[in-house]
Amino acid sequence: MTNLKELLQKQRDFVQIRQWDKFGSPKNLSMALAVEAAELMEEFMWLTDEQIESLASKHPERFQNVKEELADVLLYLLRIADKMQIDLLKSADEKIKKNETKHPVQQSIELAAKYS
Amino acid sequence: MTNLKELLQKQRDFVQIRQWDKFGSPKNLSMALAVEAAELMEEFMWLTDEQIESLASKHPERFQNVKEELADVLLYLLRIADKMQIDLLKSADEKIKKNETKHPVQQSIELAAKYS
Amino acid sequence: MTNLKELLQKQRDFVQIRQWDKFGSPKNLSMALAVEAAELMEEFMWLTDEQIESLASKHPERFQNVKEELADVLLYLLRIADKMQIDLLKSADEKIKKNETKHPVQQSIELAAKYS
Amino acid sequence: MTNLKELLQKQRDFVQIRQWDKFGSPKNLSMALAVEAAELMEEFMWLTDEQIESLASKHPERFQNVKEELADVLLYLLRIADKMQIDLLKSADEKIKKNETKHPVQQSIELAAKYS
Repeated sequence: MTNLKELLQKQRDFVQIRQWDKFGSPKNLSMALAVEAAELMEEFMWLTDEQIESLASKHPERFQNVKEELADVLLYLLRIADKMQIDLLKSADEKIKKNETKHPVQQSIELAAKYS
Repeated sequence: MTNLKELLQKQRDFVQIRQWDKFGSPKNLSMALAVEAAELMEEFMWLTDEQIESLASKHPERFQNVKEELADVLLYLLRIADKMQIDLLKSADEKIKKNETKHPVQQSIELAAKYS
Repeated sequence: MTNLKELLQKQRDFVQIRQWDKFGSPKNLSMALAVEAAELMEEFMWLTDEQIESLASKHPERFQNVKEELADVLLYLLRIADKMQIDLLKSADEKIKKNETKHPVQQSIELAAKYS
Repeated sequence: MTNLKELLQKQRDFVQIRQWDKFGSPKNLSMALAVEAAELMEEFMWLTDEQIESLASKHPERFQNVKEELADVLLYLLRIADKMQIDLLKSADEKIKKNETKHPVQQSIELAAKYS
């Protein structure tokens, strides 16, 4: 099974052998990431939550698109983190901790109740 | 060290204990993902590539923001994949293979040369 | 009353007097436009359609945010069109015509019915 | 010549005759707006500022795409404002005034100098 590190190495090889690295500034890559995130939204935007839930069974080709858009987001995310020499897993781990402090449990439950 | 699976479990726990899961439809989460991707762009958009390269040394607080935005993108990505029962690493692995077929090496090198 | 041309002139003046024009390449401005579009989404993303409908009456300060995000999108849009010497109204007029051809009425009604 | 009000009316007619209005909640439309903004970025993201400047003369078909993406953004923007009963021009006019207060001229010039 692939892990995140192996995936990054494959993506590095893919880019390097094509000599595409010169286009891959963090700025350009952040645009590409946002474009892929938008393409994911595009799959969902005219559907209801119920239609999205049955996407895999009723529209397998659209479900396949969703998979590929998620993959594209991850691949660009890995490249940006790599370029910036950021440990993505460590950053995410720290961010969860920060979020836990920022959003105390009881207060968050009450906020959720208010919006429901 | 955290891996992707442990990270997902932490994120699940974070959401569940706050009773925030009801807001977490794939559609809503795809909007949140796009918003985080935009916040990452916001860090870069008025900077040159050179300024971004020296961000860690010259503007550590902005570099910290970049780390957190990357983390946010990853956390929403994990939640969407989880909701849709998609194996993110497997999808990314397959996408690289598909990209390799779609973009033959020699042709890609020539394309890169044309744009330079 | 302001029209689009006067608005553009005010925006030009705003930018020029601050000597901000050097940052305003179409590429940078397209990032800024996407960021503002994301900020608009951020106002809506955790709300239901019903909550959004009553936003003006129940959450006037959030409704004010929506107004400002819409305004920001328009202002960046005007600047990009201006930079690229594109007549925005003419382009939109042509696009509607193109959309009319691309989406024949009867077929579009049937598509809408299928998704409902 | 078309003005913004006429354009909105054409867009309303386009949507209504196709019975597409049921999909046009502000939330869905804000997603569509963000998607169009991303498609605009997609036209620019791998290009340098110089390449974008010569787009109209060297790649007229891509310049045409830019026009259409700008048009799409405007059309969705008009629909959202219409749905929310927001006067887009008035909001933009107020936003410029707010920006003028928020960004005093002298301070803004110094900020611009610092980033250059």
